[in-house]
Amino acid sequence: MVGEQPAKQDAPPAVMALSLPRAELSEAMQAYFAKCEEKLGYVPNVLAAYSHDDAKLQAFATFYNDLMLAPSGLSKLEREMIAVAVSSVNRCYYCLTAHGQAVRQLSGDPVLGEMMVMNYRAAQLSARHRAMLDFSVKLTEEPHRIEEEDRQALRNAGFGERDIWDIGAVAAFYNMSNRIASAVDMRPNPEYHGASR
Amino acid sequence: MVGEQPAKQDAPPAVMALSLPRAELSEAMQAYFAKCEEKLGYVPNVLAAYSHDDAKLQAFATFYNDLMLAPSGLSKLEREMIAVAVSSVNRCYYCLTAHGQAVRQLSGDPVLGEMMVMNYRAAQLSARHRAMLDFSVKLTEEPHRIEEEDRQALRNAGFGERDIWDIGAVAAFYNMSNRIASAVDMRPNPEYHGASR
Amino acid sequence: MVGEQPAKQDAPPAVMALSLPRAELSEAMQAYFAKCEEKLGYVPNVLAAYSHDDAKLQAFATFYNDLMLAPSGLSKLEREMIAVAVSSVNRCYYCLTAHGQAVRQLSGDPVLGEMMVMNYRAAQLSARHRAMLDFSVKLTEEPHRIEEEDRQALRNAGFGERDIWDIGAVAAFYNMSNRIASAVDMRPNPEYHGASR
Amino acid sequence: MVGEQPAKQDAPPAVMALSLPRAELSEAMQAYFAKCEEKLGYVPNVLAAYSHDDAKLQAFATFYNDLMLAPSGLSKLEREMIAVAVSSVNRCYYCLTAHGQAVRQLSGDPVLGEMMVMNYRAAQLSARHRAMLDFSVKLTEEPHRIEEEDRQALRNAGFGERDIWDIGAVAAFYNMSNRIASAVDMRPNPEYHGASR
Amino acid sequence: MVGEQPAKQDAPPAVMALSLPRAELSEAMQAYFAKCEEKLGYVPNVLAAYSHDDAKLQAFATFYNDLMLAPSGLSKLEREMIAVAVSSVNRCYYCLTAHGQAVRQLSGDPVLGEMMVMNYRAAQLSARHRAMLDFSVKLTEEPHRIEEEDRQALRNAGFGERDIWDIGAVAAFYNMSNRIASAVDMRPNPEYHGASR
Amino acid sequence: MVGEQPAKQDAPPAVMALSLPRAELSEAMQAYFAKCEEKLGYVPNVLAAYSHDDAKLQAFATFYNDLMLAPSGLSKLEREMIAVAVSSVNRCYYCLTAHGQAVRQLSGDPVLGEMMVMNYRAAQLSARHRAMLDFSVKLTEEPHRIEEEDRQALRNAGFGERDIWDIGAVAAFYNMSNRIASAVDMRPNPEYHGASR
Repeated sequence: MVGEQPAKQDAPPAVMALSLPRAELSEAMQAYFAKCEEKLGYVPNVLAAYSHDDAKLQAFATFYNDLMLAPSGLSKLEREMIAVAVSSVNRCYYCLTAHGQAVRQLSGDPVLGEMMVMNYRAAQLSARHRAMLDFSVKLTEEPHRIEEEDRQALRNAGFGERDIWDIGAVAAFYNMSNRIASAVDMRPNPEYHGASR
Repeated sequence: MVGEQPAKQDAPPAVMALSLPRAELSEAMQAYFAKCEEKLGYVPNVLAAYSHDDAKLQAFATFYNDLMLAPSGLSKLEREMIAVAVSSVNRCYYCLTAHGQAVRQLSGDPVLGEMMVMNYRAAQLSARHRAMLDFSVKLTEEPHRIEEEDRQALRNAGFGERDIWDIGAVAAFYNMSNRIASAVDMRPNPEYHGASR
Repeated sequence: MVGEQPAKQDAPPAVMALSLPRAELSEAMQAYFAKCEEKLGYVPNVLAAYSHDDAKLQAFATFYNDLMLAPSGLSKLEREMIAVAVSSVNRCYYCLTAHGQAVRQLSGDPVLGEMMVMNYRAAQLSARHRAMLDFSVKLTEEPHRIEEEDRQALRNAGFGERDIWDIGAVAAFYNMSNRIASAVDMRPNPEYHGASR
Repeated sequence: MVGEQPAKQDAPPAVMALSLPRAELSEAMQAYFAKCEEKLGYVPNVLAAYSHDDAKLQAFATFYNDLMLAPSGLSKLEREMIAVAVSSVNRCYYCLTAHGQAVRQLSGDPVLGEMMVMNYRAAQLSARHRAMLDFSVKLTEEPHRIEEEDRQALRNAGFGERDIWDIGAVAAFYNMSNRIASAVDMRPNPEYHGASR
Repeated sequence: MVGEQPAKQDAPPAVMALSLPRAELSEAMQAYFAKCEEKLGYVPNVLAAYSHDDAKLQAFATFYNDLMLAPSGLSKLEREMIAVAVSSVNRCYYCLTAHGQAVRQLSGDPVLGEMMVMNYRAAQLSARHRAMLDFSVKLTEEPHRIEEEDRQALRNAGFGERDIWDIGAVAAFYNMSNRIASAVDMRPNPEYHGASR
Repeated sequence: MVGEQPAKQDAPPAVMALSLPRAELSEAMQAYFAKCEEKLGYVPNVLAAYSHDDAKLQAFATFYNDLMLAPSGLSKLEREMIAVAVSSVNRCYYCLTAHGQAVRQLSGDPVLGEMMVMNYRAAQLSARHRAMLDFSVKLTEEPHRIEEEDRQALRNAGFGERDIWDIGAVAAFYNMSNRIASAVDMRPNPEYHGASR
């Protein structure tokens, strides 16, 4: 559909606002990028942003893949729901775009993805998911007020000790990731926007 | 795509969380609803929510249509951009969904709609649009701090006296509308989510 | 009483900070202004501010009069109490002045008006009024956190479904009205200050 | 004027919410109370509240009288303007009532008193007064962000080193006083409300 | 231990950022300073800062000594714990340094002092101390929300009416003191840092 | 020094509040722990907390060591200053204790460590360090408001593109680390408190 005169836009930064040349990548990272291209059709820009330093890229990728993909009492969808609810508090354009898409895809429910982006309280969540996101958002907004009763609320919702670690770790990670993205004005790959709608 | 087990959801409220029977609608309002059905394919749920009282419905519709559709120095897209940036501050699920779709449609730029929902500062905006949204968001977040220098910043960006009224009026309106929607848990029509992607 | 040298003041703006000539008013609006003059002795400045555009003035007046004067489970005083408690959060000089006077007049209790302006929690309110104002203030401060339990608290205090709509609608309206007043630096009529003391 | 049914109110606490018997007052304090009765017609309730302990009462009265009445580059009105602007941030019912009256009386300008209570930014202040209140309010809201440039802004507005001390000391004092009043729910004498209108 | 090149630092202000010559001190104040030198080895800089005006110094010292040293249901350590927890909210460098040392000294527990500075919620406190600090911190952060139920929580933790006054008075005082220190950039005596570790 | 009766304390959690048995550690991690014991005399509790899962421990240690120890335009002290200033905003007891000690040790300036814990604005910092910490704290408090002008302020203070990445990455990391510590109530090793005073 042809719209009104769209908002005038300068060319946006390709991947981020910092001018950092790509480093010589290790074989492991070259293989990882190739696998991304093969499975997704593109290398996520967060990896491209980190590719100015092979050691940092590898450390980030290892940390990220363990966190989001390793066996856990939390499903991959649950971890992505936390990612988006945290990123909503921090209003991180990159992470909301990339992980909002992941929630849409993993749940098969595009509206759920939108709700996580806009206000997770609008969703009709199970008690488990509500407790998980309430903890994650409180940890984001006022970490110094998290106390034993907050952990107990997770236990009451059925989470075990390791699950509580994982909820905290995922919520904490996106508080890092949101801020790296904001610090360097990271730009999401355009493929995310239309996918899984 | 078939996803993981989606989040368990109770049946969401049809239009809002209050049980209010539909009033006998006036001819004018019946005609208005019919026109919505014809042009959009549905009656926006905000109108359905107001239809428990014909006088309130009519007052709201008149006020809204003047604000968003009457001649103005602000284009319809600009008014919708304000609507979404304000609704993002207030994290209003209804308005972000409905007016996010309007920005996507009017601009022909789905990414612009996403940016307004997530963080308008991520968009590469013209100086005019940036000033317009900065004023609207400050008016939303800390209205008691708006002073002459804020109005002057709009004049410096090329806006006239009447334009300043209109910017203030639209931003103020969504501060009302967001809160009516939140007060009654208004639910957006499902058509918005996938449209204009 | 003769005071110290008062604070040096430039001539304040007559009605608002925007220079907008008065429009040709419709007969209906002329009659409305005449009625204000007759009953109050003046035209409230909010109406004068809107009179640069007859359609906007009429839409505003209709919306306002339905909201504040139409039959409702909320008394006129209750609606004014909400207006002032909301305006206190937003620190709106115009609305606190005008509606603070209305609370003083309708209640016959000047101290109640002052408490609504300063901190409604200082008043010895009935459970009904406390619940009504707690909801209104939460809706003002953090609309995205209003949930079913907030509506239930109103039901527990004796409010019905339509009453909840009306509380939400009045609180939401003053979140608009406060911001229009702040956007254009609207000035209250001087008559309010000394009245009903 | 006879109003609507006023808000139902339980008997408010006479002076404060704590049950503390009056101490045997020293001669100096008895004389001070007598002087209050003679000059004002009543003993301010803050003094009555402190009168459970003669040493505390005397320390408070001495501290207060030096602060608000001793020679200073700030006029008494200016000190009262700071008191009210600070109390407005902290929404202290007692101090807004008592010191709002003082601003009305000392300035001979009831509207100025109202503006200090509601939002000092609404007043057409001299550069001197605006700088004085901006510093006081920033010191109230975010004391940890006060830096040399804030003191320099006062110097630029014509204040000397001792004046800066006095502005800081008065603003700081009402941050104490507001909180004592809130801690014990101190009630202002009814005489303040109607005086100097 | 020899460190890296330390952060380059200009000479810090000796006692505070204002240039105010010391006043002729009264005999009482000279004796007080002599006693400080004798007992502590130094005059606390807050007293040095006040010494530009003998009346203010005397009023402050009297007020302070009554508050912190007079008989009370609160131990001296408890009063210092409140001082530090409040100063932590206000991020006051002077008071955290001076009163953090006092908590370390009076408790004989350096870690308790650190916890009060950093986040009192991290300490394993008795119910009495937790209630005392929760009230003090709420009174600091949002005094306008203190209500009867907050006082009742103190009574439930075993505090009497006078204890509640004292908790409120100490917490309120440091809200003043923190702001005087911030207003004039008061510098703590260097002796505090290493003491009682 | 023998103090007053210290605050009653229950036995604190050894390392964290979650009951998670230590995993079988890999040789690499066993060697890493041995090296800690040898060089520091203890294994930092953050590593002990992660040791319930060897893969997570290794990912964290690798990520951390690259961030804080790898070559960078930022000195190790500068990275620790960021760690503490960020942890101060988030009021993280663990990180303030551990990294406050690191600032004291690396700078040889115990007071600098205290200032970073209490309020970095109290330190007399070089323009470079002030810009570095202002960016880090803004990124912590309101990441969604970081824009190009914030990065430019770093460039103006002499930082290069890679330095900006590193400042953002360190500040972001402690926003994660603070929240993991808060989520699980991580307890610092007691050795930190008295060291480098």
